[in-house]
Amino acid sequence: MVVYLDHAATTGMRPEARDAWLHAAEAAGNPSSIHAAGQAARRVLEDARERLAATLGCEPIEVVFTSGGTESVNLGITGLYRARRERTGRTAIVAPEGEHHATVDTLDYLHEHEVADVEWVRVDRDARLDPDAWEGAVGSGDAAVATLLAANNEVGTLQPLEEAASACARAGVPMHVDAVGAFGHVPLSFRGLRAASGSRSAGLVAMSVAAHKLGGPIGVGALVVARDAAVEPLLHGGGQQRGVRAGTQDPAGAAAFAAAAELAVAELAVEAARIGALRDRLESALRERLPEMRVSALGAERLPGHFHAVFPGAQGDSLLMLLDAAGIAVSTGSACQAGVPEPSHVLLAMGMGDAAARSALRLTLGRTTTAEDVDAVIATLPGVYERARGAGLSTRRVAASRPAGDALS
Amino acid sequence: MVVYLDHAATTGMRPEARDAWLHAAEAAGNPSSIHAAGQAARRVLEDARERLAATLGCEPIEVVFTSGGTESVNLGITGLYRARRERTGRTAIVAPEGEHHATVDTLDYLHEHEVADVEWVRVDRDARLDPDAWEGAVGSGDAAVATLLAANNEVGTLQPLEEAASACARAGVPMHVDAVGAFGHVPLSFRGLRAASGSRSAGLVAMSVAAHKLGGPIGVGALVVARDAAVEPLLHGGGQQRGVRAGTQDPAGAAAFAAAAELAVAELAVEAARIGALRDRLESALRERLPEMRVSALGAERLPGHFHAVFPGAQGDSLLMLLDAAGIAVSTGSACQAGVPEPSHVLLAMGMGDAAARSALRLTLGRTTTAEDVDAVIATLPGVYERARGAGLSTRRVAASRPAGDALS
Repeated sequence: MVVYLDHAATTGMRPEARDAWLHAAEAAGNPSSIHAAGQAARRVLEDARERLAATLGCEPIEVVFTSGGTESVNLGITGLYRARRERTGRTAIVAPEGEHHATVDTLDYLHEHEVADVEWVRVDRDARLDPDAWEGAVGSGDAAVATLLAANNEVGTLQPLEEAASACARAGVPMHVDAVGAFGHVPLSFRGLRAASGSRSAGLVAMSVAAHKLGGPIGVGALVVARDAAVEPLLHGGGQQRGVRAGTQDPAGAAAFAAAAELAVAELAVEAARIGALRDRLESALRERLPEMRVSALGAERLPGHFHAVFPGAQGDSLLMLLDAAGIAVSTGSACQAGVPEPSHVLLAMGMGDAAARSALRLTLGRTTTAEDVDAVIATLPGVYERARGAGLSTRRVAASRPAGDALS
Repeated sequence: MVVYLDHAATTGMRPEARDAWLHAAEAAGNPSSIHAAGQAARRVLEDARERLAATLGCEPIEVVFTSGGTESVNLGITGLYRARRERTGRTAIVAPEGEHHATVDTLDYLHEHEVADVEWVRVDRDARLDPDAWEGAVGSGDAAVATLLAANNEVGTLQPLEEAASACARAGVPMHVDAVGAFGHVPLSFRGLRAASGSRSAGLVAMSVAAHKLGGPIGVGALVVARDAAVEPLLHGGGQQRGVRAGTQDPAGAAAFAAAAELAVAELAVEAARIGALRDRLESALRERLPEMRVSALGAERLPGHFHAVFPGAQGDSLLMLLDAAGIAVSTGSACQAGVPEPSHVLLAMGMGDAAARSALRLTLGRTTTAEDVDAVIATLPGVYERARGAGLSTRRVAASRPAGDALS
């Protein structure tokens, strides 16, 4: 029996999503075809679009299906940037530090190849955006577009989306939100955020989501694009989806996404309370047993299922391996970085030192998490930490030439 | 009972592909995660990559999974173009006329936004590439990259891939092949074509394929990228797949694609003969009954399941609708264009006039096609053509102001 506590990397598919996929996949038909089989596929697709739109608080026409979170984020940022640069000549992109790699790498690319100047806005020790710095950056006069994570994927910090969107609306800057990790886990309404930000063509205009983070299949996502927003497409071809995203549309993936999203949103309040209580119990039990452990982002509002902490003297990778051997699946941070022995850029942005940023562990609870799972971690982690610290000490002896400044911050 | 003769738009999912998807989707796990669940997902993914590579005649590491044919074609063309322009300063892209919209629209974009000069190479009345014109264009000295369809998606014409690749190899130009419609339907080997073209870094270096054209799911594709080819990514993020295509990898989609591709390739010789015989019977029976009908690309080697013809005096859309009402699903050409009342650019490139290019019908046979399906068309189409011609005549009377030059070519 594996204790799976890596729901933020991917969570299991809901049976209802699998069934919706299967049902839709039975029928052959390209939604772009005119004949009856094509129109039947089109109905499945558009029904899914409507249902997904209802869970997102947007119009069906604003839902652009994509292949997942990474494509959505790339399309949201790059598409807004190119359109806006073409119209205004502006070249600055505003983003907080500690964003997901999909954003960081997209911004690096736009900087290197498409003259973008990236304005990184500082975050505090809880990874929370500094609202004044954000306001200043988006109001600087050269901001083409702004982007931010709704919830940090490593430490779980929720950003002040309304404040961020309002500042963008006042400055006349369109904003993209990466809600891949937040959608289905905390209340979120595209329309609500837009109303709060008080502007049509600026403020929040695009939002990225992905199916496999809430019980749908991998390989399916969406970018919500406000009706009046200009987004240059990344993929060119058959003119599908308002010309924003070409490619044969996938009724089965869309139906599975809609089914999963409906359940996630319907269960949200109850599940967030249940999962949050389990997380809090895990956290307080571990803090009691491991006083040297430092829970991350304790001062911020966080995703209910996120537990992230630094274990001084141990390597995150060693903790992960030992827990895995004990049948407990966790992460050192973002799954996308796993295997790359670099300190987390999120933790560095939060002001941690290099060693601390290599000593982190992320446990993310989800739909299938039980009290027994939490008990297993409480029983196992202290011993694992003890062993990993021993390994850390011997490693440190071997690597004696490393500078002393590389200690935990 | 619907007679489905639009297999080129999308063909039904094979039960084995569905089962492979279901089996892989049961297990939660992000292939980038280090823990056991992640590594299990990784094994499913890499097993699929190996099996798909075997069907494509390439190395597993050369398979880059994508969200489908459109993304693959965009990545193949744009990725090669950007990398090569950066290294050589060359800005010309060579492509035949009558390519798929994924190629045409990508080239239009690169022309408008990234200084590409597109050299359209003429095709003959059978949509077949002129090898001398191709040789001249790729050898002009400014060609950054070349791209062509393996099999024309509207009329089914097979292009001389070996000749085209050899010319590119001689000229030192990397070439992309859009094999989305050809893979699984005619013999195709990436390695074989590369050997024939006799160069490593030029000639054939990238090839696009898609799962749903051979019995896999919609939303899954691949770009084969030669080990030594430089391709700039379109999607940036977690560094997955050699950095060529970021985004959480989809083990279920990959497994379903591999299962479908293995079956399609294993059955290819037998199925191509069976389907080709049915197509030939359909074609000769209709030619006998409808002497004014003109079968397209009769002088070329074609995909075995493709039947495409022009029906003078009738609108393709009218024929399609009447057949649909009779329970026969067909297309006027590419599904991606369906609903857009424009003459086919493929038929125009073949030298047809505007009216002829609006009077076409494409019937594509596939795995589930039976002799009874063909009999149904033979029994139904002549009457449908008769009725559509009547409609065409009344339309022509109403549209009397149109110039006489707009007649059938």
